Amino acid sequence: MKMIAYMGVSLDGYIADKAGGVDWLNELPIPEGDDLGFSTFMAGIDALLMGSNSFRTILQIGDWYYDKPVYVASNSIQLIPEGYQERIKLIQGDIHELLAQLEGDGHQNIYVDGGKIVQACIQADLLDELIITHIPVLLGDGISLFGKLERSKTLEHRQTEVLGYGLVKSHYLIRNNR
Amino acid sequence: MKMIAYMGVSLDGYIADKAGGVDWLNELPIPEGDDLGFSTFMAGIDALLMGSNSFRTILQIGDWYYDKPVYVASNSIQLIPEGYQERIKLIQGDIHELLAQLEGDGHQNIYVDGGKIVQACIQADLLDELIITHIPVLLGDGISLFGKLERSKTLEHRQTEVLGYGLVKSHYLIRNNR
Repeated sequence: MKMIAYMGVSLDGYIADKAGGVDWLNELPIPEGDDLGFSTFMAGIDALLMGSNSFRTILQIGDWYYDKPVYVASNSIQLIPEGYQERIKLIQGDIHELLAQLEGDGHQNIYVDGGKIVQACIQADLLDELIITHIPVLLGDGISLFGKLERSKTLEHRQTEVLGYGLVKSHYLIRNNR
Repeated sequence: MKMIAYMGVSLDGYIADKAGGVDWLNELPIPEGDDLGFSTFMAGIDALLMGSNSFRTILQIGDWYYDKPVYVASNSIQLIPEGYQERIKLIQGDIHELLAQLEGDGHQNIYVDGGKIVQACIQADLLDELIITHIPVLLGDGISLFGKLERSKTLEHRQTEVLGYGLVKSHYLIRNNR
């Protein structure tokens, strides 16, 4: 099973403002219909593993971008909100238990979404690929994409693409010890 | 006068390890003689403004890369070390006073080097350009390039270049309010 993070991040490393908001992302002058390559990426994955904060953000936005099974990892969400029963599956456990459930369901290529869950994957040597889009903003404060690690990790750069609006998307493989 | 930062940074945003060391940079498999565009950049600047930590790191390494006037901003260094009297000028003061001294000496394009001094420039709305090279490493901990800001800043992406060894160099203009 392959775990892939696909994240937008300010140049100073934040995925959301201090309150978890992503208004600064919505303010980008991106014309409707340009998905910055997201649907091409989605075509190659089997399922999503999403943290509860990401799920709550998507609930607030009200749009649903996913045509693949979505697993929401949460110990705090007890009931699936109205309208999302067919869209998501709630799962619980540490990162190893979460991945075992996705693997048990036969998924091979997993899109991991959310700061905490991506950090947990990296820390456990379980993230295989990182597709990071640097947004030309210094946010100045907020929720960081990356957390502390006990040991440094070497990445292998695969590709960088400059999208419209000054977004720089880079694709890395992670060399894990496992 | 134009202030330009030119920094290498791990993908998780660190310019040095926790002890201020840059061994992880020296471990990059870069052949001797490939300066990754540094001399081309240096040809366009008039002077360097460097923090005391950067200067101490360069003293340890023992190499000297600069053929332009170098100003070292430090309240702690009292004496210029042996062999560096002709190479550097010690200056003191807050970021506005430092820049006034460089401007008084007639310099126009200033290369700002060092985490603290780059952060001070950004916070004071004085950094005009940022050339940032992402190194394909997750360092996991260390000294951050970026600090907190009271307000976010919009950048204008000019160019991105993939160098050898998976280094991704991006050039941004900073839209300051001043």
